[in-house]
Amino acid sequence: MTDTEAREERVLEAVRERRELVNAAIPEELPVVEPERLYEASRYLLDAGGKRLRPTVSLLVAEALAATEPVPGDYRSFPTLVDGEEIDLMAAAVSVEVIQSFTLIHDDIMDDDDLRRGVPAVHQEYDLETAILAGDTLYSKAFEIMLDTNAPAERTVRALDVLASTCTHICEGQALDVAFETRDDVLPDEYLDMVEQKTAVLYGASACLPAILMGADDETVDALYGYGIDIGRGFQIQDDVLDLTVPSETLGKQRGSDLVENKQTLLTLHAREHGVDVESLVETDSVEAVTEAEIDEAVARLQEAGSIDYARQTAAELVESGKSRLEVLPENESRELLESLADYLIERGY
Amino acid sequence: MTDTEAREERVLEAVRERRELVNAAIPEELPVVEPERLYEASRYLLDAGGKRLRPTVSLLVAEALAATEPVPGDYRSFPTLVDGEEIDLMAAAVSVEVIQSFTLIHDDIMDDDDLRRGVPAVHQEYDLETAILAGDTLYSKAFEIMLDTNAPAERTVRALDVLASTCTHICEGQALDVAFETRDDVLPDEYLDMVEQKTAVLYGASACLPAILMGADDETVDALYGYGIDIGRGFQIQDDVLDLTVPSETLGKQRGSDLVENKQTLLTLHAREHGVDVESLVETDSVEAVTEAEIDEAVARLQEAGSIDYARQTAAELVESGKSRLEVLPENESRELLESLADYLIERGY
Repeated sequence: MTDTEAREERVLEAVRERRELVNAAIPEELPVVEPERLYEASRYLLDAGGKRLRPTVSLLVAEALAATEPVPGDYRSFPTLVDGEEIDLMAAAVSVEVIQSFTLIHDDIMDDDDLRRGVPAVHQEYDLETAILAGDTLYSKAFEIMLDTNAPAERTVRALDVLASTCTHICEGQALDVAFETRDDVLPDEYLDMVEQKTAVLYGASACLPAILMGADDETVDALYGYGIDIGRGFQIQDDVLDLTVPSETLGKQRGSDLVENKQTLLTLHAREHGVDVESLVETDSVEAVTEAEIDEAVARLQEAGSIDYARQTAAELVESGKSRLEVLPENESRELLESLADYLIERGY
Repeated sequence: MTDTEAREERVLEAVRERRELVNAAIPEELPVVEPERLYEASRYLLDAGGKRLRPTVSLLVAEALAATEPVPGDYRSFPTLVDGEEIDLMAAAVSVEVIQSFTLIHDDIMDDDDLRRGVPAVHQEYDLETAILAGDTLYSKAFEIMLDTNAPAERTVRALDVLASTCTHICEGQALDVAFETRDDVLPDEYLDMVEQKTAVLYGASACLPAILMGADDETVDALYGYGIDIGRGFQIQDDVLDLTVPSETLGKQRGSDLVENKQTLLTLHAREHGVDVESLVETDSVEAVTEAEIDEAVARLQEAGSIDYARQTAAELVESGKSRLEVLPENESRELLESLADYLIERGY
């Protein structure tokens, strides 16, 4: 086993351990109560799986700040930076995952995606009305859960401020993403700005919220937010790459669906700048009808134009930048895991 | 002019004055920024009008508590119950109206209603994607705005707690409302519980939030919440009556649409208990195809069964109960206006 493999093995183990704890906390924070169909629909995607990367970032940041052993402890009574004070850190971690799930449910309606995590999207498994309402329920529940960390009021207010403005940014990012589908002059910087709003801000929130709730100073909070933004942007760019390079059954949805749906990604923007006729890369315009051969050919042309390497390179630079921001944290194993997690986001196979 | 007419005239004038101020505050709290189409869609229903009853309740409660002159003052720097302390009360009032607007946008999608306030629903004027996203944007904006009152952190946390749980209740109420459409055994108590969650909790929030933010005691906060719940329930029952008795052009949508869509209301539940075959009251099942004559006949049969009078009577009792809860407030003209406003909710013609 090489050093890199050993590091990846350690971070995957850390993610797995924390995922189990997050999975156990979700039904505690979001029990299925009356009206049951609404809460079942709200829990549907959360229960279908997910890597829980965002809550794992929150938990690792907290461990690094508290300089506790990087062994999952009692996140429900977690020490803050104030002597003798404890907060329910798991509530904050779950809140972020609940926001993520709300956005997935509404995004799947907006993008007309039928599959998510290998199962039908909520509006397919239930219906449009229930999916809208399940998303709306998760939205307010996330705020209720974030209000339940027992942190002092000043810090709770600040945490809610971050949570609310994060949600606004996600909506703005999604609006830009939808608007880009009908534009053929999107610039790479516009795309990166959209990705920041749609995806990266929630990683930023995941990383800085524990610091806020634990009473860290502003410099630390800001640096951690920057870490989240950088790795979130890297993560999304890598996601765009994986949409083209990972088999459909591993993805849990049709490979190349972004190209079919004419989504702008950093890859297509680069390809267009390098003379590729992006619109005709995939002629079929439905994910049901597209063939693997058509996707293969499109990927080969993007590869030829250097677009896939360019996207991978950009993601790698963002991840390096994100890692450098962790210097505000005490040196310990949790901080190393946060560095390895950043690497993993762009090295992962799916 | 009778005493009743004079009182109604005074409360309508009070509502008008405050509506103007709320209307002026909405673009301040919710400016149209990039991406403009998203914010235009978010503002579309807010700009289309509305009586602003909920924010007016908030402003009147604050005036009654502060025992200020019942003349619209500077709600942006409003005295609390703590000497020398001021808060931005208008932000709290607008926040509640923004939540109301978010729920209308999503409800219109779920109920497939094409018209609202005499203009196309947002998903008709724009599209489904934009309407979902506009609602989601207003949702987080309402929290951002409520975070901006400058009230001390403890009270802000409590206000956000009320706001978040209110939103959860609204979703639960809407889920029940949708579920009732396919059930023929809904009990009046179930209906009233649904109305409380779907509609009344936002009146409860409107009434108690200023008290929380101004530092009132728990007894006052609870009584005001009760006032809002009572008048909110009365308001919704009266709305059900008006849906049948007010001409379509005044309503801004098809009269009798509840009957066409097979919605359970206190009227239909009463009628069923009194032997009326509610399902066949209106045979047509689309609001586009139904005739005025068909609605007239249905209304006559509900009148005969005593259902319309029963609903009016129930609404009147709720309003009386609500008014009695205002005894916790100092006796002043603002408190009288809150009493008259309660009366107006069930005496209004539309």
